[in-house]
Amino acid sequence: MEDKTSVNSPNNAWGRWGPEDEAGALNLIGAAQVKRAAGLVRTGEVIRLAQPLSHKTPVPRHRSGLQHFMGRDGGDYAAGARRPGGFQFAEDTVIMPLHIGTHIDALCHAWCEEKMFNGYRETTMRSTSGATRLGVEKMPPAFTRGLLIDLVELRGRPMQPGEVISREDLQACLAVAGLGIEPGDAVLLHTGWLQAQAGNTDIDFNSEPGIDHAAGFWLAQQDVAIIGADNFAVEVLPFAEGTVFPVHQCVIRDFGIPLLEGLMLEPLVRTGRKEFLFVGAALPIVGATGSPLTPLAVL
Amino acid sequence: MEDKTSVNSPNNAWGRWGPEDEAGALNLIGAAQVKRAAGLVRTGEVIRLAQPLSHKTPVPRHRSGLQHFMGRDGGDYAAGARRPGGFQFAEDTVIMPLHIGTHIDALCHAWCEEKMFNGYRETTMRSTSGATRLGVEKMPPAFTRGLLIDLVELRGRPMQPGEVISREDLQACLAVAGLGIEPGDAVLLHTGWLQAQAGNTDIDFNSEPGIDHAAGFWLAQQDVAIIGADNFAVEVLPFAEGTVFPVHQCVIRDFGIPLLEGLMLEPLVRTGRKEFLFVGAALPIVGATGSPLTPLAVL
Amino acid sequence: MEDKTSVNSPNNAWGRWGPEDEAGALNLIGAAQVKRAAGLVRTGEVIRLAQPLSHKTPVPRHRSGLQHFMGRDGGDYAAGARRPGGFQFAEDTVIMPLHIGTHIDALCHAWCEEKMFNGYRETTMRSTSGATRLGVEKMPPAFTRGLLIDLVELRGRPMQPGEVISREDLQACLAVAGLGIEPGDAVLLHTGWLQAQAGNTDIDFNSEPGIDHAAGFWLAQQDVAIIGADNFAVEVLPFAEGTVFPVHQCVIRDFGIPLLEGLMLEPLVRTGRKEFLFVGAALPIVGATGSPLTPLAVL
Amino acid sequence: MEDKTSVNSPNNAWGRWGPEDEAGALNLIGAAQVKRAAGLVRTGEVIRLAQPLSHKTPVPRHRSGLQHFMGRDGGDYAAGARRPGGFQFAEDTVIMPLHIGTHIDALCHAWCEEKMFNGYRETTMRSTSGATRLGVEKMPPAFTRGLLIDLVELRGRPMQPGEVISREDLQACLAVAGLGIEPGDAVLLHTGWLQAQAGNTDIDFNSEPGIDHAAGFWLAQQDVAIIGADNFAVEVLPFAEGTVFPVHQCVIRDFGIPLLEGLMLEPLVRTGRKEFLFVGAALPIVGATGSPLTPLAVL
Repeated sequence: MEDKTSVNSPNNAWGRWGPEDEAGALNLIGAAQVKRAAGLVRTGEVIRLAQPLSHKTPVPRHRSGLQHFMGRDGGDYAAGARRPGGFQFAEDTVIMPLHIGTHIDALCHAWCEEKMFNGYRETTMRSTSGATRLGVEKMPPAFTRGLLIDLVELRGRPMQPGEVISREDLQACLAVAGLGIEPGDAVLLHTGWLQAQAGNTDIDFNSEPGIDHAAGFWLAQQDVAIIGADNFAVEVLPFAEGTVFPVHQCVIRDFGIPLLEGLMLEPLVRTGRKEFLFVGAALPIVGATGSPLTPLAVL
Repeated sequence: MEDKTSVNSPNNAWGRWGPEDEAGALNLIGAAQVKRAAGLVRTGEVIRLAQPLSHKTPVPRHRSGLQHFMGRDGGDYAAGARRPGGFQFAEDTVIMPLHIGTHIDALCHAWCEEKMFNGYRETTMRSTSGATRLGVEKMPPAFTRGLLIDLVELRGRPMQPGEVISREDLQACLAVAGLGIEPGDAVLLHTGWLQAQAGNTDIDFNSEPGIDHAAGFWLAQQDVAIIGADNFAVEVLPFAEGTVFPVHQCVIRDFGIPLLEGLMLEPLVRTGRKEFLFVGAALPIVGATGSPLTPLAVL
Repeated sequence: MEDKTSVNSPNNAWGRWGPEDEAGALNLIGAAQVKRAAGLVRTGEVIRLAQPLSHKTPVPRHRSGLQHFMGRDGGDYAAGARRPGGFQFAEDTVIMPLHIGTHIDALCHAWCEEKMFNGYRETTMRSTSGATRLGVEKMPPAFTRGLLIDLVELRGRPMQPGEVISREDLQACLAVAGLGIEPGDAVLLHTGWLQAQAGNTDIDFNSEPGIDHAAGFWLAQQDVAIIGADNFAVEVLPFAEGTVFPVHQCVIRDFGIPLLEGLMLEPLVRTGRKEFLFVGAALPIVGATGSPLTPLAVL
Repeated sequence: MEDKTSVNSPNNAWGRWGPEDEAGALNLIGAAQVKRAAGLVRTGEVIRLAQPLSHKTPVPRHRSGLQHFMGRDGGDYAAGARRPGGFQFAEDTVIMPLHIGTHIDALCHAWCEEKMFNGYRETTMRSTSGATRLGVEKMPPAFTRGLLIDLVELRGRPMQPGEVISREDLQACLAVAGLGIEPGDAVLLHTGWLQAQAGNTDIDFNSEPGIDHAAGFWLAQQDVAIIGADNFAVEVLPFAEGTVFPVHQCVIRDFGIPLLEGLMLEPLVRTGRKEFLFVGAALPIVGATGSPLTPLAVL
């Protein structure tokens, strides 16, 4: 597999970090980015950007929700369970789809034409093994500068289902904040969508605000390491006519940039901080296509 | 519930942060601790301290291991699955006991005499709801100073199953490193146990090196926020005669300090750094007694 | 526990089959009933009375549906999986709530006043063990005379949600068919409800036709061994004012008669046969409160 | 797909019941077989042939065992759960591999050369759908004559791991019993293997007594509908040199005969009856490769 750097082949990042690379754009977070990000900590406030995970966590209809089972609990003792030496404990198990709540898409989550990011073939991923290439356990943790791009602030209202975030929208937000994207940044998009679904027990997952292909491509050209949003798919739904998940195909498959979906951004938005230390580390589930996680903004 | 500070009641921390507190010793990580911890980043190296999660991740016999199922994978496309607009994707589900691999014990995980930390009753935790008090979703993320206490270095060899880490051992390690514990620290103990189990398909989970009650009590008195180790239960197994999980009872139940078990410490040990930024954030699974996570050491 | 036979204590069957009995009314199926039932086979037609089980099988909102995962499938081979000696195979796993589709309620499924059928205490059933008394594995298989009681035929139309099947309705159906209930019979009630839900993706499980308390009590007095129906709970929903699942309490808890819910009766109805050999055997899941099964009518 | 009857093509039964058939040898159980089988009931004794299902049910290492979770149980009420109108109930969920305990192999369970029984292609079975051809829900219930072939009686001792049941062994057993196989019979083989594993927590699933290819082929030529045994795979393990699951390939794939594995035969053996009514009905799990079930022998 020949090296095709972004200079020579602007349409993808295959080969940019070598033919055996499985980390993709997370390679853009080097020691310099880590150190710079640590230097952004000023007030010492730590904000969790994750939704609670329970059977109430919304999932689209084709997925089952989370199930949480107590294998041993307080009720068992109330009913007379033995307490050796007075000791009591409880334990539990979850059944959990991996693209639930606040989660990251591994680079094996989406592809086309039988090939995943960096040219890995779809046949490397089977029922028996999961993904032997680009599994979520291959993703380095992200400890980098986070940028909040607040479309709600720009629009002066929550975005509507189906409303596009364009490249110009992103640039306008950054200009207002006086910030520019730098390589390795985690860019977090605030659309207001998740907040607007609060209490909705029949969420329409087929219609949401998000970026279009041009906006995704532009972010990829800026060498961002992660793109996150407070929606279900980062990209606008429904897609532009004649396309299917075009941002997933461009960003994940072509450029190796993981998407961070279902972010809970309101507590961060309320602080007014647009630049911060971002920390996100997936569970290292071998061969998985994604993972729930608890990303942090440290102010 | 009256306030019983550690000054007035040195035997526990119940009431120390108010009668409704569910965060326990993680309260000891305030803005000052966060800022100071961020300042420890020097080289920009980020180290994951988590074991890979798969059906091979060792669990004791009374627990089932992790199961990972592909709901849609590359093989399905190889067999002819439809690709609308060329788009392909994969998704998956795990069945996962929450005390598996590298995981944190929530404060509702262990107790005695029908009462959990801060006096919450065991009857607050049922099959139907999980833990309504002290669930893992109530644990603030830990972003704080991490200290590596290297017992393997002290002994000059990996510790043996059943071998005690005493208070004096902890103090000796700290003295060698020229470090002192400060309130809010995450203390990580390197015993060599996990490393020694590599390739062992029939691990004895009933015998391992770890701290005894006196060492746990001393750490609690130092106001540590988290105690972690590269073993299964942090504390020494088997227990001292006549006791059952005495460290769990003292540390979790009396002092509200979460235990971080199953750490993968070798990569950190190899760097020689004993003081670093520690970051750990559990999955916010509502009512859960623990959570796998991917803790980071940032150097 | 003293013997309280139905003669002396007509309000329940506790003690009727001894203080340690866990089989309840299934005890009424003795060798004579089995032989007589076998003699009902005339045409040799065998009809399955079970709904298909899949993620589409309807469940009320508080339960998760069935999940079916392929651990190894044809797609894996299409993607290149190894075929030692040419051999290929597939295997799979289900996550299945036990009260789904066509299923039987074990005698530990419903109770009141802390006591289950035959006086067993609720504390015999815990998270750690399941039901140590009256679990579904304690239910003998049912091989007995089946009687179809066709309320749709009686009414001349499918029954409506909330419509009561009274004792008089049962008697009227039997009179038309020229049949009488005998001890040990499996009585199957055709309401038309399940058929009416075909294609409904938002079934209201809180409103359905079914028997009221008087009808249930009368059936119990006739010494039936099983009561089944083509609805969700056998009994009418909503309940009579001031009661909660009164038929479950009377039939299961007081008389030890298992309920067979979610029957698919249309194919049997179409044959016109009202009396037949009924066969039903639950999965012997230790400590379970119920089990899906595939009951048969043999004509 | 042309019809290849057993007369014209003795090496398989593809096409014998038409090109769209998915029932295979279960087609051999017609009304005459059902009526004749019902006539075998003499004493009215009903014997369950199934192992209990629990986390203790043995499974080979590559499969996870059954997990049983209480979603609501007696302990919850002991801890104070609400009892509307006095009503109490419990419910539960299993995670269950489908080839566990006493189970039947669907005709899609094993194949070779990309084709399953009757020529269906392996690509009809994917992660997303399960088996769209030959799934266990396509198997008609078995209500037919059962024959017990008692190899333990023949040998005068339990069979040993790796010991072959030959065609001649089968014929010798039948001769002693004065019985002959007839089309549609369910043939059950008693090896003593399961009984010998009682209490063994580390069963070797790679070595067991069972039939060889010649014995399987001979049974298929006799037009049996089902072959069952009290072992893990019906066929002898290890296989004959140079073959892999040859009986599965011949019996399931070529002749469409389901295998019934893990039978609990001792209670039947003790009665001395060799000919009886056999009843077995799988759970109709859509697209599944097998199903636990509770087969019955009615004497």
